[in-house]
Amino acid sequence: HYGRGGSEHCSGEQCRLVMQQIQFADQKQEFNKRPTKIGRRSLSRSISQSSTDSYSSAASYTDSSDDETSPRDKQQKNSKGSSDFCIKNIKQTDFGRREIEIAEQEMPALMALRKRAQGEKPLAGAKVVGCTHITAQTAVLIETLTALGAQCRWAACNIYSTQNEVAAALAERGLSVFAWKGESEDDFWWCIDRCVNLEGWQPKMILDDGGDLTHWIYKKYPNMFKKIKGIVEESVTGVHRLYQLSKAGKLCVPAMNVNDSVTKQKFDNLYCCRESILDGLKRTTDVMFGGKQAVVCGYGEVGKGCSAALKAMGAIVYVTEIDPICALQACMDGFRLVKLSEVIRQVDIVITCTGNKNVVVRENLDRMKNGCIVCNMGHSNTEIDVASLRTPELTWERVRSQVDHVIWPDGKRIVLLAEGRLLNLSCSTVPTFVLSITATTQALALIELYNAPEGRYKQDVYLLPKKMDEYVASLHLPTFDAHLTELSEEQAKYLGLNKNGPFKPNYYR
Amino acid sequence: HYGRGGSEHCSGEQCRLVMQQIQFADQKQEFNKRPTKIGRRSLSRSISQSSTDSYSSAASYTDSSDDETSPRDKQQKNSKGSSDFCIKNIKQTDFGRREIEIAEQEMPALMALRKRAQGEKPLAGAKVVGCTHITAQTAVLIETLTALGAQCRWAACNIYSTQNEVAAALAERGLSVFAWKGESEDDFWWCIDRCVNLEGWQPKMILDDGGDLTHWIYKKYPNMFKKIKGIVEESVTGVHRLYQLSKAGKLCVPAMNVNDSVTKQKFDNLYCCRESILDGLKRTTDVMFGGKQAVVCGYGEVGKGCSAALKAMGAIVYVTEIDPICALQACMDGFRLVKLSEVIRQVDIVITCTGNKNVVVRENLDRMKNGCIVCNMGHSNTEIDVASLRTPELTWERVRSQVDHVIWPDGKRIVLLAEGRLLNLSCSTVPTFVLSITATTQALALIELYNAPEGRYKQDVYLLPKKMDEYVASLHLPTFDAHLTELSEEQAKYLGLNKNGPFKPNYYR
Amino acid sequence: HYGRGGSEHCSGEQCRLVMQQIQFADQKQEFNKRPTKIGRRSLSRSISQSSTDSYSSAASYTDSSDDETSPRDKQQKNSKGSSDFCIKNIKQTDFGRREIEIAEQEMPALMALRKRAQGEKPLAGAKVVGCTHITAQTAVLIETLTALGAQCRWAACNIYSTQNEVAAALAERGLSVFAWKGESEDDFWWCIDRCVNLEGWQPKMILDDGGDLTHWIYKKYPNMFKKIKGIVEESVTGVHRLYQLSKAGKLCVPAMNVNDSVTKQKFDNLYCCRESILDGLKRTTDVMFGGKQAVVCGYGEVGKGCSAALKAMGAIVYVTEIDPICALQACMDGFRLVKLSEVIRQVDIVITCTGNKNVVVRENLDRMKNGCIVCNMGHSNTEIDVASLRTPELTWERVRSQVDHVIWPDGKRIVLLAEGRLLNLSCSTVPTFVLSITATTQALALIELYNAPEGRYKQDVYLLPKKMDEYVASLHLPTFDAHLTELSEEQAKYLGLNKNGPFKPNYYR
Amino acid sequence: HYGRGGSEHCSGEQCRLVMQQIQFADQKQEFNKRPTKIGRRSLSRSISQSSTDSYSSAASYTDSSDDETSPRDKQQKNSKGSSDFCIKNIKQTDFGRREIEIAEQEMPALMALRKRAQGEKPLAGAKVVGCTHITAQTAVLIETLTALGAQCRWAACNIYSTQNEVAAALAERGLSVFAWKGESEDDFWWCIDRCVNLEGWQPKMILDDGGDLTHWIYKKYPNMFKKIKGIVEESVTGVHRLYQLSKAGKLCVPAMNVNDSVTKQKFDNLYCCRESILDGLKRTTDVMFGGKQAVVCGYGEVGKGCSAALKAMGAIVYVTEIDPICALQACMDGFRLVKLSEVIRQVDIVITCTGNKNVVVRENLDRMKNGCIVCNMGHSNTEIDVASLRTPELTWERVRSQVDHVIWPDGKRIVLLAEGRLLNLSCSTVPTFVLSITATTQALALIELYNAPEGRYKQDVYLLPKKMDEYVASLHLPTFDAHLTELSEEQAKYLGLNKNGPFKPNYYR
Repeated sequence: HYGRGGSEHCSGEQCRLVMQQIQFADQKQEFNKRPTKIGRRSLSRSISQSSTDSYSSAASYTDSSDDETSPRDKQQKNSKGSSDFCIKNIKQTDFGRREIEIAEQEMPALMALRKRAQGEKPLAGAKVVGCTHITAQTAVLIETLTALGAQCRWAACNIYSTQNEVAAALAERGLSVFAWKGESEDDFWWCIDRCVNLEGWQPKMILDDGGDLTHWIYKKYPNMFKKIKGIVEESVTGVHRLYQLSKAGKLCVPAMNVNDSVTKQKFDNLYCCRESILDGLKRTTDVMFGGKQAVVCGYGEVGKGCSAALKAMGAIVYVTEIDPICALQACMDGFRLVKLSEVIRQVDIVITCTGNKNVVVRENLDRMKNGCIVCNMGHSNTEIDVASLRTPELTWERVRSQVDHVIWPDGKRIVLLAEGRLLNLSCSTVPTFVLSITATTQALALIELYNAPEGRYKQDVYLLPKKMDEYVASLHLPTFDAHLTELSEEQAKYLGLNKNGPFKPNYYR
Repeated sequence: HYGRGGSEHCSGEQCRLVMQQIQFADQKQEFNKRPTKIGRRSLSRSISQSSTDSYSSAASYTDSSDDETSPRDKQQKNSKGSSDFCIKNIKQTDFGRREIEIAEQEMPALMALRKRAQGEKPLAGAKVVGCTHITAQTAVLIETLTALGAQCRWAACNIYSTQNEVAAALAERGLSVFAWKGESEDDFWWCIDRCVNLEGWQPKMILDDGGDLTHWIYKKYPNMFKKIKGIVEESVTGVHRLYQLSKAGKLCVPAMNVNDSVTKQKFDNLYCCRESILDGLKRTTDVMFGGKQAVVCGYGEVGKGCSAALKAMGAIVYVTEIDPICALQACMDGFRLVKLSEVIRQVDIVITCTGNKNVVVRENLDRMKNGCIVCNMGHSNTEIDVASLRTPELTWERVRSQVDHVIWPDGKRIVLLAEGRLLNLSCSTVPTFVLSITATTQALALIELYNAPEGRYKQDVYLLPKKMDEYVASLHLPTFDAHLTELSEEQAKYLGLNKNGPFKPNYYR
Repeated sequence: HYGRGGSEHCSGEQCRLVMQQIQFADQKQEFNKRPTKIGRRSLSRSISQSSTDSYSSAASYTDSSDDETSPRDKQQKNSKGSSDFCIKNIKQTDFGRREIEIAEQEMPALMALRKRAQGEKPLAGAKVVGCTHITAQTAVLIETLTALGAQCRWAACNIYSTQNEVAAALAERGLSVFAWKGESEDDFWWCIDRCVNLEGWQPKMILDDGGDLTHWIYKKYPNMFKKIKGIVEESVTGVHRLYQLSKAGKLCVPAMNVNDSVTKQKFDNLYCCRESILDGLKRTTDVMFGGKQAVVCGYGEVGKGCSAALKAMGAIVYVTEIDPICALQACMDGFRLVKLSEVIRQVDIVITCTGNKNVVVRENLDRMKNGCIVCNMGHSNTEIDVASLRTPELTWERVRSQVDHVIWPDGKRIVLLAEGRLLNLSCSTVPTFVLSITATTQALALIELYNAPEGRYKQDVYLLPKKMDEYVASLHLPTFDAHLTELSEEQAKYLGLNKNGPFKPNYYR
Repeated sequence: HYGRGGSEHCSGEQCRLVMQQIQFADQKQEFNKRPTKIGRRSLSRSISQSSTDSYSSAASYTDSSDDETSPRDKQQKNSKGSSDFCIKNIKQTDFGRREIEIAEQEMPALMALRKRAQGEKPLAGAKVVGCTHITAQTAVLIETLTALGAQCRWAACNIYSTQNEVAAALAERGLSVFAWKGESEDDFWWCIDRCVNLEGWQPKMILDDGGDLTHWIYKKYPNMFKKIKGIVEESVTGVHRLYQLSKAGKLCVPAMNVNDSVTKQKFDNLYCCRESILDGLKRTTDVMFGGKQAVVCGYGEVGKGCSAALKAMGAIVYVTEIDPICALQACMDGFRLVKLSEVIRQVDIVITCTGNKNVVVRENLDRMKNGCIVCNMGHSNTEIDVASLRTPELTWERVRSQVDHVIWPDGKRIVLLAEGRLLNLSCSTVPTFVLSITATTQALALIELYNAPEGRYKQDVYLLPKKMDEYVASLHLPTFDAHLTELSEEQAKYLGLNKNGPFKPNYYR
């Protein structure tokens, strides 16, 4: 049903009203494992949950400045005299630039895109407002967009995740960036507003991560949508909001769901989690995996990655599933398929990867053995019923950052990681390579929407065309010195394919 | 696009004409690794290629009787006096029955289906004509259909694959079976005709494997389709024919494509090939895998299975691909992605898994090193350009069944397996468990089509509903003592799912 | 204790007497997985058990000639007029020569040895009597010895394993070979005697596999030992006999135990079994491994290989052990360590790899589930108490070669492979590469013993010097295009090593 | 040759002289991967290198107190009034006690030893001086020794590694402990002296890690050896010193080399490194492993562990080796064996595991590609020629703790970890389970030496008896809920073994 669904045109005002009415009910969300965009918006809050999630790792290089003045109260100029930005400290630009340069080396796909597309400037004239994490990696994205011809204004999608030095380096190069680490909620919206609301500035494209920027424009400047060519949204939450709008027939512009592209999904879920489960567990607990018994709840892509990694390290892994097809896959991959209750007494590690809620409940926790490690790789903070552990008879002891011992009256300790929030968000880092996949996908989606002929995209939510998805992948092959084979004319004809792809049906994973 | 496509009703005659006009052009075919149904029909031949493929393994139990009399010239009766069958030797029934009983033990899903569905007899009154391999495993299927209320008449879909003893056992129990090992082409069509064409017999359902039975009815008895409720087709070839008919708007009845069900695909391609590549290579060459260098052409499901298996045995595996997404997957799985020409001089084993043609050509073969093993796991016999090896300067030496040494003038030998035809068809056996998946899928498809309310299915080709696909999987879980978790009401609501499935979108693999 | 043990000199006669007295008691034997040399000699039999073990695979190329005349009754000459041999049919020479040539291509180490050592003829003048399997691979060994200067006379160490065509090819080239497939026990000893006992022939070296040749000379021609420079023995059984002699102080000449060289052991046990467990199970049962539960009894090298292979194919593997260190290794490798009785009801496959006796007993067999496969990869035929299944209430049914169904009164069937004898001996083949390791080791051992300065070796049993063991390995590296790094002078000095090895202590595995 | 070598008795004075003469030349050292005991002593320094190695991880819990007063200048008493200790701050006892209690839960073998052996107090009366890292894990060891009857005095073997809180907790319970984090060299020897030199205190046993305590007693109190029953030494360096003494015939008491016990070696090298290579690389570089090319120099146990781990995460791994047997193992495990120069241009990660020096030299570093990560898992800091990078044209940039970018004039950056010192020492933590193996081995060695009948051990260096090594392993099996099988009487007799072990020859790994 993605990419379908007709919808009548809506005025900006109408959209605004609709937006306010939409119930972000507790519904199924697709599984997305990028640490930065999880969360479920409730209408009672005016800021998305993802925007306030703690985000320690990406900012690990950032020094903790002791300058307490709010950036909003500072007067700063870059070396060219511009002051159309608001950041922590423009003097940190050198360190930030170095970070960006290092990131550039690890994001060859964007650099290739700069080179290949630069001649034609496919984003020439594109006024882009963006709202993402402000890190060295997104800086490479933003500067790529600029190199392709776009004019950009940028805010942060999370109040904690901004690397101040990177923001400084961007501002020094002339980007209008409004972001710092440790924004208040008021700061957060103020920064977004500064991006959008400028005399003589009419955005043409929106690049959003979490939907807050889109939300703000819907709410405050609905008429702006009349001249906007499209939205590119990366997060589960934001995509969900867009589908809600589309379902209600009130989406005013085409939107591209880059979260569900094949390449991105595989990296976010399978390949990235295969490594981050080990990394997250080691950094928090130093646990030895060999010989340990672990149960992985859910055998989707994330569960497959986690199970394979632990098995490779010598752990004995059990799997739980509700879907018989995934269950059979677990069997064929050599995992015993069990109900959680069957193994809960004996396992050393419990990992949830379901996208579901209350997968591990108090009854399970009561039966775990002393020292059992419990963590969540799946979704938001719903999978483990952490609330059930907030009872008087249990003692919580914080033993390290992100590590709590929950102690039963008999002395039994459960090791709860990240208070049940996503382990890979809280206790691991996302490799630059994975961020590169995402950023390249975003850039291509912007180019596609901006250059699409009238009528190709309606007011609906679209997946990235398969061919561009394949292009993202192909841009990353040189990293591995990987050499693609090309079809001969004869072979292409035999297969009924275009020599340049797409090579597989859309549903192929 | 599967399962869509409107089509106006067609008369039988019209269908027949259309059938004759369809060009089975050289087009892409989906990848199907079940060894028995590969092939591409050319109109110049009146018998499908798959029906004459050699099929050694499944018949391995079968003795080579030296009775030279054609079954068509024999008069045989079973113990109840019936003679409505034509087989090799009714006296072989005991051995065949034992084979069936052993197969029953390994096909618990069908046995469970018998038990669960027997009370209601969901196929009561269903007159089924079938055309499949006649083996112990299909015997379990046929007898299950009978137990569910169906009346069946059966022919073989391949002239070599019939296990005579099994046919005898079926005939003894009253099945009208027309099949023996070593039929002539004339026998082949005669047997099919005997199934279809009987005074007072109007088939209601067709179960086909390769499309020859369907083809025959279209050609000879088009009016029969007026009372037929549906076709269940298992093979790539047969499914391709049905889509051609549908595309031409001339399919007269609903058809169920069971070849592309998720469960069946995963087992046919990934799980089965992971084992059969090792098995096929060992049985033919006794090659030691450890330390060997192999190149796997194509990293779809079959390529993934082959690569993983060889890697696990200590081989160094290179992969070639045309699709950048699959290429990136190969990289992430730890395989060097190369062009064939880069490694052709150094590898010990070359395996094709592409579904493409001329993947390995004479130029590649010329450069291989002495002793290199070449085989095809992909599709039909097109992937390796074997014809290019039929030149005077090369000597062919048959060293074992299915193993040829092709010898260059300088003494270099290439070890060619199965003359470039499918290795798993020719040199390995399909595990009963995989056959069980297929047979269960077929049975459920028949039940679905036979019991579907008017209007659910049009004259089109359908995939098995996701929920039934999941049901097939669930019926096989007890084999592994696997325990499925059930959603609570609350969880189902949270996920927006029915507690009983389907649990994933249709496109999920 | 290997390689130690002083022993006074003994006269031939004395030796003969001692030999007759030695009790081949039921004692521990080292684990050797080469399929061909297992067995335990009881004094009541005058022929070693290994000499009569069935040996189907290696002879698989051999046609079953219907010439019933005993070779002993035939008069045959080779093309040069010699008749100093006794084989099945000298006319089969061409086919045998081709087999040898093919084997030569897969035994590059021996070919390299021919080239490297040929100039100096290190075996010049060495009169060698040999008693091994007569296969294409041993033919390459024998012809290598000849090329190095040796004069050879050869008999078979097993009454079934001779490839008649290979024997013909050897005889045609002038080797005095006495062997055919299907010898009687009397033939067996007659052939050995013909090798040894020839006017004017005094053997200098013995190459034995099983100890029967050595035994015969001790028994019949003890004085011959006065001029024999050494024995090279490959089998567990033969080595055990030699240690017994040594322990009794009655070994008359130096002997080289090539069975226990590091390289050979690793290949025989770990690398070879990793593949042959899968191969043996597939060829006999076509079982699908994915999802199956298996228990591997014993986690030595063989158990490690079997467990790893099954795990890689998606089986769930349990391990039993008696040694806590190996048990802990199993844990760290991700296997649940259990007692057999804990899992016997649930497993699909039981594999013994212990070297012990009665590891699987009737009580275990009674509790196995229907269809459970039972096989032995460990040692001789002692591990599974097959005798306990020969009781009236159980029915045996031979369903294929090497496959029996043992049927309980309630219909339960156990699938017993090779009647409890070694699976890899009976149902798989030994890769040429593994045979190449062994043959190279034998050749080097002969060269070492023949050229050793007086006094280097006493009348004792020795292991191959570490350095020569390393040399065997190095000769096989080119097969894998593997490039060894050389130590610099500085590094060698730093490590306190000779640049050319040995690189590890003797005990290093 | 270990455990051999007779040696005449030496007087203490004589020993002292000898000790001063021994040249700790640059010689081969056995491979030991425990992070804490590496280093090579040069005579010019009076403190072992290992005693000053940085040791960040194990002390990660420890707060950085800002109390600058030297503990030697403080007057502290525990709650029972004792002041026979010298530590940072007795008030930190609670936090330290909790750390110990947590460690106790993860060291069940020691706890079991306490229970099993407590009744008999096998160390009753044993005055033990110890010199090890002072961490929660060693605290569990020390308190176990005390529970078994020993009286202990303890110092730290490293000036950085002491967990002050743990020392406080030990002091509070009455242990005479002399250690704090950040000792000066003078402090270091002062602490050791306080352990040894006390009115009325004559040590009976020495437990040493690095040999500094032993060295001190040899140097200052040689007469003490007259009443010392034995030394237990854990480190490579210390063991090397002891063998030097033994070789010189001057070792005064029996010494137990616990470094080379099978169980400890396997855990230190294979199992621990398999995990710490991933952990160390992630914590320092956040590198994604999938698709990366890595070269592992050396395929001993450490190399095997590193290679397997990286392969499992989807990296392509090349191996270099000097030993043909290990090289062949690498081939059979599926790794391409190369010379470093063949792949140095293309790899993303270089890991040394050789125990050798100058394995990676400037020439290699010059040819690496931009971003290549270089680290050492092998031995000390000799494997990578880091000194060669200290040249003017190269810029060093510290980007994180333990991470340097070395920048070539053309901008190429090499990522050097831990300045070429051991990655697992500097950037990872040793799992408690591995420390438990070591500590249990130490405790058993003390018990063995203390209780051995007169004459069992001479003035020589011994390995832990095989049977006790097996006992260590067996004490750790319950952690994995692993169930050992016991030999029946009949089986033990058949194998020629004692039912209770030892089960394997001494050399078995």
